[in-house]
This record gives sequence, C-alpha cells and structure tokens, in this order.
Amino acid sequence: MVSWSDTRRVDVQLPGGRYPILVGSDLLARLPAALESVGLHPGPVAIVSDSAVAAIHGGAVEAALVSAGFRIATSTRFPPGEATKSFDNLLALFDAFAAASLDRTAPVLALGGGVIGDLSGFAAATFKRGLPFVQIPTTLLAQVDSAVGGKVAVNHAAGKNLIGAFHQPRLVLADITTLGTLPPAERIAGLAEVLKYGVLCDAELFEWITSHAGALRAGESSALQHAVVRSCEIKSAVVAEDERDLGRRAILNLGHTVGHAIENELGYGGIRHGEAVAIGMVAAARIGVALGLTPADVPDRIVAAARSLGLPASVPASIDPASLVASIRQDKKIQAGRLRFIVPTAIGAVEVRDDVTEEQIVAACGS
Amino acid sequence: MVSWSDTRRVDVQLPGGRYPILVGSDLLARLPAALESVGLHPGPVAIVSDSAVAAIHGGAVEAALVSAGFRIATSTRFPPGEATKSFDNLLALFDAFAAASLDRTAPVLALGGGVIGDLSGFAAATFKRGLPFVQIPTTLLAQVDSAVGGKVAVNHAAGKNLIGAFHQPRLVLADITTLGTLPPAERIAGLAEVLKYGVLCDAELFEWITSHAGALRAGESSALQHAVVRSCEIKSAVVAEDERDLGRRAILNLGHTVGHAIENELGYGGIRHGEAVAIGMVAAARIGVALGLTPADVPDRIVAAARSLGLPASVPASIDPASLVASIRQDKKIQAGRLRFIVPTAIGAVEVRDDVTEEQIVAACGS
Repeated sequence: MVSWSDTRRVDVQLPGGRYPILVGSDLLARLPAALESVGLHPGPVAIVSDSAVAAIHGGAVEAALVSAGFRIATSTRFPPGEATKSFDNLLALFDAFAAASLDRTAPVLALGGGVIGDLSGFAAATFKRGLPFVQIPTTLLAQVDSAVGGKVAVNHAAGKNLIGAFHQPRLVLADITTLGTLPPAERIAGLAEVLKYGVLCDAELFEWITSHAGALRAGESSALQHAVVRSCEIKSAVVAEDERDLGRRAILNLGHTVGHAIENELGYGGIRHGEAVAIGMVAAARIGVALGLTPADVPDRIVAAARSLGLPASVPASIDPASLVASIRQDKKIQAGRLRFIVPTAIGAVEVRDDVTEEQIVAACGS
Repeated sequence: MVSWSDTRRVDVQLPGGRYPILVGSDLLARLPAALESVGLHPGPVAIVSDSAVAAIHGGAVEAALVSAGFRIATSTRFPPGEATKSFDNLLALFDAFAAASLDRTAPVLALGGGVIGDLSGFAAATFKRGLPFVQIPTTLLAQVDSAVGGKVAVNHAAGKNLIGAFHQPRLVLADITTLGTLPPAERIAGLAEVLKYGVLCDAELFEWITSHAGALRAGESSALQHAVVRSCEIKSAVVAEDERDLGRRAILNLGHTVGHAIENELGYGGIRHGEAVAIGMVAAARIGVALGLTPADVPDRIVAAARSLGLPASVPASIDPASLVASIRQDKKIQAGRLRFIVPTAIGAVEVRDDVTEEQIVAACGS
C-alpha cells in the first residue's frame, strides 16, 4: 500500500486559480488518485510522451489509469529532442485529439521532459480553446523549471518558443523516482537551475546546495525532493507575481543571456542547457562586480558551488567571447537594442540592468 | 475636424481587465486616436485584412496610421471566405510577424469580418505568447457578434473553430460607415444576430427592431448604430459572466443548432449564417411550444420580425427535416449524446434544455 505521507505539496496561487505540485517518490502509480484530487475524474485522457520515457514509464502509467477507470483515448509518442517541438508535431496532436473526439473535459497528460510538456501543453491550450492539462515531468530540469509556470510553446524557424501560450496545468506530478532513470549528467545539468534559484533569492538554499552537493550529485532521493520543492516554491512565487511575463518574471532568466549564446555557439547537443546556465550565472556575477554592484567574492562562490555539483563554470576555450556578444545581440531579448542583464548583487539578490556594455560582457566571459 | 460626440462606447468588463467597443460613423480615420486612448502608442503595427476589405479601406487606414506616427511593420491580405481560416494562413502570419520582428508591444489590427478577426486574433494570441489585438470589424455580423467576446480560432478538417484561444482585444472599433460598402443581403443577414439578442433577453430590443425594420433594412446609420451598441452590450454582459464558455455563454447559441445543420446541408455559399440562424430561432421557439414552455404566439412573432427584416423564417423546402437531425447529431455540441437546445420561453427569455427529442426537432423544422 503506497502512502502519501512522504509526498510534499506546493500550491501555486494565481489570479485565475490555484493548482498543486506534488513532489515525492513512486508517484506515477498514484496518478489516478492525484487526478481525482483535482477534480479530474475517470473518463477519457490523452497521453503525450517521448519514446524514451514511454519505454520506461508508459506502460505503468497507462495500466494505473486503466485500472482506476480512465480510458486512454489517445497516446502519442514523439522522438526525444528539441526538434520535436515543431508545428508538424503540433498538427499531429490536433489530428490525434480530433480522431479521439476529445471534449473539453478530457485532460492531456504530458509524460516526459520540457519538450513534451511544452508541445503537448500548447496543444492542450488551443484544442477546442483549452483542455485540462497535467504535467508529469520526468527530468530534473522539467521538475524545477519548465513544468512550473504555465508557459507552453512550439519552435519556429525564427526563434525557440516563438509560438505559444500561458496555459496553467491543473496538476504537476513530480515523481523523484523517475530521475533515477536519467543519465547522471542530465540530472546534474538540472541542478544548475536549482542553484539559480539560490543565487536569485535564497541564500539559505544556496548554502544548503553547497553542503548537500554530494547527495545531489549522487541522486539521493530526499535531497532531490527538497531541491525540487524549494525550486517550485520559488518559481511559483515569482510566477504568481507576474503570470504573463510582463516584468518580475524576467529575473528567472538569470544566467540565460550568456547561456543561450553559448548554446547557440556550440550548436544542438554541444552543451546541456543547465551547464550553459551555470556558466552564464558566473558571467552575470562578474558583470555585477564590474558594475560595482556586487561583492568581489560572489562570482567565486558561484564557481565553487557549480563545480561542487559537477557543473562547468567558465566559457569553453573554443568560444571567442566576441562571437558570444554577437550571438547575444541576435537574442530576441535584446531586440530593443539594449543589453538587458539579470545581475546578482549578492547570493540571494538580483537587479535587472539595462546598462551593460559589450566590453563588460567580453571581459566577464574571458578566462 | 471629426468629432467623437456621436460615437458611443460599450465597456467590456472581464475578470482580467476591461476594454472599450467604440461604435460610430467615420471611425477608421480616428483609429490612431483610439489606439492612443487604450495605451497603444505610435510604433510598429501589423495589419491583417481580406483583399476585398483592404481594397476599400486599407489605404485610408494605413495613411491614418502613418500620419499619426505608427509604422506598418507588416500588412497581410487574404482572400475573403471561410477557407482563409486555415493553418497554412496561420503559419503565413507567423512568418510575416517574425520577418517584421514584432515584439510583444506591437498590436495586431484585424480589418475585416469574422474570418479575419478569428485568424489574426489567434495569431496574435500565440505569437510570442500574446500580442495586443485590435478588432476593426467591417461587417455587421462581426460588429454584433464575432468581434466581441475574445474567441479566436482557425478551422481543422475535423471541425470549424476547432483550434483556438480566448484572447480579448484591447479595443474594438466598429465603424458603422463601413457597413455601407457591404452587399445589402450581407447586412440583412447580420441583423439576424441582433434579433437573436432581443429574443434571448431583451423584449424591448425585439420591439424596437420590429418598429425600425425599414430603417435597418435600408442601412440607416443611426438605426444600425443603436443595433450594434445594444448587441455589444448584451453579448459583453453574457461574456463577462462566463468568459471561458463553461456555462451561461451557451445561450448565445440560440438558433445555431438548427442553423449550423442548415448551413451544413446547403454547403458553403448555400445560405448566409444569419439567415440560417433566423430559421433556427423559429425552430427553437416551436420546440419550446412543443415542450409546453413557450406561449404559442412566440414562433409567429419571431417569424414576423425575421420577415420584416428581409430574413427567411422557415427551413428551405429542399432540405428533408430528417437529414437535418442527422446533421445535428454530428455537431460537436451534442457529442455527449444529448440534444442540447437553447429554447425561447418568451420574447426576451430562454432556457437550456437537454430533453429535446428528434421527433420534436423534425416537427419544428417541417413546413
């Protein structure tokens, strides 16, 4: 008999409603009960997954649903990888939902990482103007970041996530046990986003990470559970202030300006997102020092924390800092012509700055 | 010098905000001032129109915008007709918006009828997760119905409006003068939706329509302005109670169950939407009489009002009522297996009924 006693719950409170994030071990088997708890009663459901995740967890999820009286109206699997977030796959989901005659009561269940959550969430947001949506993130990055906050999207030739919506899930079920099936390097990359929340606004979390780096690297369940819970609490608090991404939510991009540029320079598969974000956070802290905002020890403390988790902390030697700046120029976030940076001013505090010069970026990204 | 003194304003109040509907004559030239009044200041804009409307009004709109300091970042024209609400055209708009580097401050202006509003509104809802949207409806049907309420969509092989969103405009500019360029039969078809609001919930409007039928048929400006204002007031009040179409908003489908079936039977171009709705309202009232809900004179009063406007009131003789029922069965609104009807119980009152039998529908649609 499974127990909920070790499951933790984060309530996301938004102007339009609230929903729970459940974080614990062996939760997939309890999906039907979790659905019932948010008013999604037995009936037809759509499952969207990637083929790698579905091969490991798909059978158990479907069996649990069916034995609880749910009907798998449609189950769609896509190849893993960013290329899955395409219009073609969006249309394939619409066709599948239409063929299954889904009505507006049928929930769409996203079983996988951020790619699956973004794609299926956008399909759920727009099919019949909105189906209930449930995130079942199976990567650490999705559990601490992409499954929280309601952003869903597909990619366009002109930009990542260019076409999307805000569609809050009815439930997020973050099963820590699924992280055990991830390649360790994937899990470690996800820890960069946890570290980001510490640098952003929680010095206590930052210290906890550095003192539990070994357990986190090793994938120890209770450490991961705490990391996911605290990350979800922080992200959902920021999202609650700014659901539509008009202001405050921008701070969540700490480390992402340089990070995205590194990803662009190295190309798909050249570096993991979290690894690039770790490097970007260090660069942002160095920019803060150069601006006179940030104590000189902050970059080194972030470097030490990143390295303790097994994350890189400096721009790969193969990248010319000047070409990074050119890449940043093309980033959609600076189309208005100014380089906007989220700058840590201490461990646990940030400022948004519009006065960062290209020279400062080059210096911060150098060795 | 234009004056706003003859322009009327309807404020739509929704949980997420409010926006004005401006109804008056010669408003297109005042579009820049209207944009400024809702905080959309000079800068890049996207215009979406159909080729017929653009040929008449496009030049004046663009000239007014440019002379007020706005920049036409992109202007896209589609062929008139329902086929324009396609995924291909949606992707064409995304490409155009991306090529113009629209950011989240740039409004999308829909200049045309319901097809243009629905298509461009859905593009605005989803490009970068939401651009400001402005409806400039140039048909009576769009001014009294589709431009009000925030529903935007494209069609899918499996159903009309199957893929869409709720995306409220920042402004609706209903220029009565544009109705003068419509074929009279188009304008008269739009009057069916005005009559619908009277039957739904406003006996006074119903009586006003019957006593001003001549002016309305002739396209007299002040009569049309009153009809548009009162329609927008009623629709926006219903939408304010149920923005997401979970309950009350269903009453707006009065006349549409039989109406859609007639449209399906006659095929594209076989009958105008408003004409079919007029016939559907009469059938719904007859069903009310058969259910014992509705005084026996109500169907005849609706027939008389429809005919006074130049609208049809009975199912075309070419349609077998039994095949209408089969068509209704396939309508998405009855996928749950029951025939849901909005039934007038008097002039100015309706009930939603789930107990209508096929025999009653056949009888109500017979001659």
